[in-house]
Amino acid sequence: MSAYDTNNIFAKILRGEIPSHRVYEDEATVAFMDVMPQAEGHVLVLPKAPSRNILDADPATLTSLIATVQKIAVAAKAAFDADGVTIMQFNEAPAGQSVFHLHFHVVPRREGVPLKPHSGKMEDGDVLAANAEKIRRAL
Amino acid sequence: MSAYDTNNIFAKILRGEIPSHRVYEDEATVAFMDVMPQAEGHVLVLPKAPSRNILDADPATLTSLIATVQKIAVAAKAAFDADGVTIMQFNEAPAGQSVFHLHFHVVPRREGVPLKPHSGKMEDGDVLAANAEKIRRAL
Repeated sequence: MSAYDTNNIFAKILRGEIPSHRVYEDEATVAFMDVMPQAEGHVLVLPKAPSRNILDADPATLTSLIATVQKIAVAAKAAFDADGVTIMQFNEAPAGQSVFHLHFHVVPRREGVPLKPHSGKMEDGDVLAANAEKIRRAL
Repeated sequence: MSAYDTNNIFAKILRGEIPSHRVYEDEATVAFMDVMPQAEGHVLVLPKAPSRNILDADPATLTSLIATVQKIAVAAKAAFDADGVTIMQFNEAPAGQSVFHLHFHVVPRREGVPLKPHSGKMEDGDVLAANAEKIRRAL
């Protein structure tokens, strides 16, 4: 496994060098909208600590991270009146990881609506901002 | 959201009423082989506490659960010399949940090998037993 790269895109977002649509932040974690959502309200939840993925994360990092994942899952389900929530976490590229800073995907789901594939298509910024606001209000 | 059903299949496995290929157990959590694996070495990690899914879980339950998920992810990757690990956790049927006791899927992944769909086909018991033993040795 490679080392942690401090110039990965999520590290830049955490440092404020790249903007994001934040929905939540506390001492140890941050949540913001995925810019290529697989469903409406797709959120990413990250630790501030520089872990590559779950394989090298400190147990304390995981404790605070999963607590925020739960908060966001409950809020995102309510915000979009969703029927369920799919949570995914990928470790290394062959498992689906594309940014090498530990993160959980939290995706509100609707009955009969499959996840969209990762198309590489960016969602409109106004849509992401409106969805972020919906989740913040539900927190 | 419905209440917790004490007769779900994982509750029966936890009570020992249905057999499973266990790979790990501690005070708060259990891990055993998925009988319909989406890849070789697919493990399920459960809390002993009766939570329906992440939406109703106690934060303390999640703390111990994610620690075991990490242990199993590291061990399963090593046991199968895998290239990565996909972790999934489904909440309510429209999100992919089929057994209503909180659980994480931990799936070793290989470069270029897609996840198998949930076919409903049971894996051979001897294969599951051998894979469980590989993971136990890696723990």
